[in-house]
Amino acid sequence: MKIGIIGSGNMGRSLGILWAEQGHQVFFGSRDSEKGKAVAQKAGLGTQGGTNDEAAAFADVILWTARGVMPSELLSNKEVLNGKIIIDCNNQDIPEEFAYPAIVESLAEKLASDVPNARVVKAFNTMAQEVFELAPAPLKDYQVSVFVAGDDEQARSTVMQLATVIGFAPVDSGVLRNARLVEGLGDFIRMIMIGQQQGSYATISVNVLPKAEQQRLGGRQASALY
Amino acid sequence: MKIGIIGSGNMGRSLGILWAEQGHQVFFGSRDSEKGKAVAQKAGLGTQGGTNDEAAAFADVILWTARGVMPSELLSNKEVLNGKIIIDCNNQDIPEEFAYPAIVESLAEKLASDVPNARVVKAFNTMAQEVFELAPAPLKDYQVSVFVAGDDEQARSTVMQLATVIGFAPVDSGVLRNARLVEGLGDFIRMIMIGQQQGSYATISVNVLPKAEQQRLGGRQASALY
Repeated sequence: MKIGIIGSGNMGRSLGILWAEQGHQVFFGSRDSEKGKAVAQKAGLGTQGGTNDEAAAFADVILWTARGVMPSELLSNKEVLNGKIIIDCNNQDIPEEFAYPAIVESLAEKLASDVPNARVVKAFNTMAQEVFELAPAPLKDYQVSVFVAGDDEQARSTVMQLATVIGFAPVDSGVLRNARLVEGLGDFIRMIMIGQQQGSYATISVNVLPKAEQQRLGGRQASALY
Repeated sequence: MKIGIIGSGNMGRSLGILWAEQGHQVFFGSRDSEKGKAVAQKAGLGTQGGTNDEAAAFADVILWTARGVMPSELLSNKEVLNGKIIIDCNNQDIPEEFAYPAIVESLAEKLASDVPNARVVKAFNTMAQEVFELAPAPLKDYQVSVFVAGDDEQARSTVMQLATVIGFAPVDSGVLRNARLVEGLGDFIRMIMIGQQQGSYATISVNVLPKAEQQRLGGRQASALY
């Protein structure tokens, strides 16, 4: 798959390298072409680098790490994104004392409003950067969730695969409106990491408890608890 | 500990029985005294039952299951709650297509506004009823989180203990304002259970990944990813 990284900071570099290791073609974009090229040179693995415009033109799947900056502001022609999958991995700023404002519109929905012909998917906003050091192994042993929300089912499925190959456990989180809830999870885990001092390796997982146990203890439901 | 259950529906009965099994003194309250007594009679384990007023007067810790109904509406004298710990386990209604409104004020904060001299703690709102069938074993093997938010540290600590003894893994989630985020988790998991058809045994856990692994792979941080 051809993957373009818009804004090759820590988040973009980490995910780009992990996907390149899995055989994907990765292009690191930056506002400064030389910076994009330098990232690719250091990363190796057959990656390329250059401007954000070049990354957007190159790719089928685009990781958008420029928080709150819209394609109409960052690209010379946002139409290049039409039909493409855009992964929005961003969270709002952390406010003082973690007093997050209510999420009336998600960053992902705002992005989708700017490029209505692209297929925007929310994902990768509920873990710190440091967790990528553990990908793909031993990360896969921990069942760390990546919550994937977007209106295009095929785009969600593609992003879920991109999560799986680097060791995460994707959780289909439905339509793009649900990005409001998923960004709320991002706010929550940052409060736990920093406010509650659990550190950068604090992660969220959704687990469905095993059915065998449910059956074994099913008798309790009828007799004792209700 | 003396625990009063306000509103002895499924949630109240399950938690009350689980705590009674652990040796706590439990009083099941109801709008209808006879109903409260019937719940206690069926539950056994030395539990008592009667009116919500009686349950509130009896207890040091109160589980408030009457969603959105305030003490000033439900009790003849809300001052009986002064100084006591009130656990708010409620979530808002599920709206059509899970289009949850943004949480500007949590149910727990609303409760605390009604009884400012009580110690309100948000907890037990991120799992379905069915998960209690697995408590305390085999539940303890799954590390299912109970997110505990409240302004009184000692009250949070008490509620965390009450979660631990029945097999959950409590997560200190800080001040009561964070109940907005915790209620957002409750909205999210219900969307996953019902909207995404993962069922009632879908659970949320916060896990801190093991430090040994972090150290073993620490070299990757410096060399490859950044």
